[in-house]
Amino acid sequence: MSSDIVFLAEGSITSPRGFLAGAARAGLRRYGHKLDIGIFYSEAPCQVAAVYTSNLVKAAPIQVTQKHLADGKAQAVIANSACANAATGEQGFRDAWEMAQLTAAKLGLSPYDVVVASTGVIGTFLLMPQIREAVSDMELRADGGPDFAQAIMTTDKRPKYGAARFTHDGRDYTVGGVAKGAGMIYPNLATMLCFLTSDAPLAQPFLAACLKEAVDASFNLIDVDSDTSTNDVVAIFANGRAAGETIDSGHPAADRFRAALEMVCLHLARAMMNDAEGATKLIECRVEGAASLADARCAAREVVRSLGVKTAIYGADPNWGRVLAALGNSGARMEEAKTELWLDDQSVYRFGEPQPFDADRARDHLKGRQVLLRAHLGLGDGVATAWGSDFTEEFVRLNSRYTT
Amino acid sequence: MSSDIVFLAEGSITSPRGFLAGAARAGLRRYGHKLDIGIFYSEAPCQVAAVYTSNLVKAAPIQVTQKHLADGKAQAVIANSACANAATGEQGFRDAWEMAQLTAAKLGLSPYDVVVASTGVIGTFLLMPQIREAVSDMELRADGGPDFAQAIMTTDKRPKYGAARFTHDGRDYTVGGVAKGAGMIYPNLATMLCFLTSDAPLAQPFLAACLKEAVDASFNLIDVDSDTSTNDVVAIFANGRAAGETIDSGHPAADRFRAALEMVCLHLARAMMNDAEGATKLIECRVEGAASLADARCAAREVVRSLGVKTAIYGADPNWGRVLAALGNSGARMEEAKTELWLDDQSVYRFGEPQPFDADRARDHLKGRQVLLRAHLGLGDGVATAWGSDFTEEFVRLNSRYTT
Repeated sequence: MSSDIVFLAEGSITSPRGFLAGAARAGLRRYGHKLDIGIFYSEAPCQVAAVYTSNLVKAAPIQVTQKHLADGKAQAVIANSACANAATGEQGFRDAWEMAQLTAAKLGLSPYDVVVASTGVIGTFLLMPQIREAVSDMELRADGGPDFAQAIMTTDKRPKYGAARFTHDGRDYTVGGVAKGAGMIYPNLATMLCFLTSDAPLAQPFLAACLKEAVDASFNLIDVDSDTSTNDVVAIFANGRAAGETIDSGHPAADRFRAALEMVCLHLARAMMNDAEGATKLIECRVEGAASLADARCAAREVVRSLGVKTAIYGADPNWGRVLAALGNSGARMEEAKTELWLDDQSVYRFGEPQPFDADRARDHLKGRQVLLRAHLGLGDGVATAWGSDFTEEFVRLNSRYTT
Repeated sequence: MSSDIVFLAEGSITSPRGFLAGAARAGLRRYGHKLDIGIFYSEAPCQVAAVYTSNLVKAAPIQVTQKHLADGKAQAVIANSACANAATGEQGFRDAWEMAQLTAAKLGLSPYDVVVASTGVIGTFLLMPQIREAVSDMELRADGGPDFAQAIMTTDKRPKYGAARFTHDGRDYTVGGVAKGAGMIYPNLATMLCFLTSDAPLAQPFLAACLKEAVDASFNLIDVDSDTSTNDVVAIFANGRAAGETIDSGHPAADRFRAALEMVCLHLARAMMNDAEGATKLIECRVEGAASLADARCAAREVVRSLGVKTAIYGADPNWGRVLAALGNSGARMEEAKTELWLDDQSVYRFGEPQPFDADRARDHLKGRQVLLRAHLGLGDGVATAWGSDFTEEFVRLNSRYTT
């Protein structure tokens, strides 16, 4: 099904037709001087769907964005790094609203068609004079996506972007995305932002359903440090510029759009894990034979979340007992007597009994950049893969430095 | 109510009348040569209540113990460190049963009156010849409790024991306990064991209810690394040797027994946190004004669990945004506009707005051995305190060393 979808490693949110983006150095950081604010804009109004952090503490920009997307429509995004504008009360709310207003004035839109996002330290206020100047000077370009990806980085070492393209009925349709991962320029909660665009003409409820599915299969299956931030948002903008008939759930191109979106989300999710704070390895855990898809996902995710697993893998220690214990701790149904575990391609535990395995070969695998864990629960057809970073002294160092 | 309860810092499981304990160096470790196996014994049959790990992977000794305690009665415990006897299949089950049998034969009991506990590496087998010899040679003494506490230590730096005593109707009643905490001689899951004894004559359902309450208020409110082990057990043995009438829920001494038990459990829980792997500080988080007791407990626990909070406190960083985010993430009801936060005695956030505070004074507090966090949620009467350790590079080092 996805065989005719092409992944574009250099693609981004400006790859689909009709999207422009830009970024600027506003000077929002106490130290350093990088791109720290960005805007992206669609020439045509967009159908928009979004998912938000589950944290009850929601940053001001999240609250503003939720209001602005209540009608499922928007046309631009303004996003900054360095300051999360969270736990900032009335002032924070006014600042988030002004960011929308400045963007709207620049682009000739209503402020209600602007999405606002911030990421950085909690409990500090935005430097609004710098933001006003940066917005007014910013130039938006058809190749501005990668710059926008730079602007939302905090302690990320690399910008994260990508796109996927498929053809239907003689037309090209593109899905592009940018994301920032688990890092902080001042240590703070890992906050993730992801923006996606498409030039496909999409029906709104179908778009929202596709986004939820793609997020469940990607960003909801990754873990760095088990802390859910106050600022997380994933939003997709579809402007229909590729033309053709509207893609809805029964449409012949529906499955390919879904697959292209998931491809971009998986790419960005893996890129986040590869660039996780202090991490040296990507851990991939595949769970098969779970009683349900939900069980497979929560089991796989608990394995990549467990500090015992993350630290053992950092030390290249084939300590599979921790993987088994994480499965038992996940909330998913499991029975020791039906469970089998593999480290890479070696069976290490089967039906209640440890299996002899080549420990040197296992350690060689664990010393690599990508570690594969696999479990079969023997209970049903549920299959899922989750990704995590290993856990290192460097994570502790990064996260224990002063904010102030 | 608890004003006439005396805490005995040097007390242990052998402080109540009629309990004997001993320990031996069986040689169960590859390196080092410490006390690694212990037995304790009551001269009279005991009412016993226990709570177990919630992990679906349960070690062989846990499975044996659950069977043996089905009737709420037992008279002895055998426990070893170095090997968890978990994920060891049929062989592990036979070994756990043989540990009960050896103990029973030595003491003239039925194997069904023996509780078995193991802690250490998952997926390795017990060295039974060494265990047979150690059990046969072991001497049980009326002051053997601290030795037993030594025998169950893994990477604990200090043994953990204590007792509490109260008087009712001219009689002394004592509750004693030993525990091991979050450490591993070979890196593995943090496993906790706790054994409690009392010479009070106690009715079985009341005893079980008191134990559950005390555990919910102590061990269930501590966190080192968010991993729930395969071997956790907390059990209390009451032999009635202090005589007097049976203490049941309506009895005039019932509240004092409850308070004495909670006092011992809290002492052992705090001792575990003070000795957590790689930790430099004890974090105490008090949540007030929660919508319910359950909400207060889960909110307080999430704060001391959050890696963002644990690493910030390790770095003496007054980054209260992470505490607020953890509250929002805990599952407890909370509203930013009704929430107030304190670092030690300084208000840092109130009703949606950051408060000015003396950052130097906050940092001085955070540099101490004990850090106090407090939140008022403004929603009800729920109050709870949870304890956690800070999170350090040393934890990562300890947990990434080879098992093999």
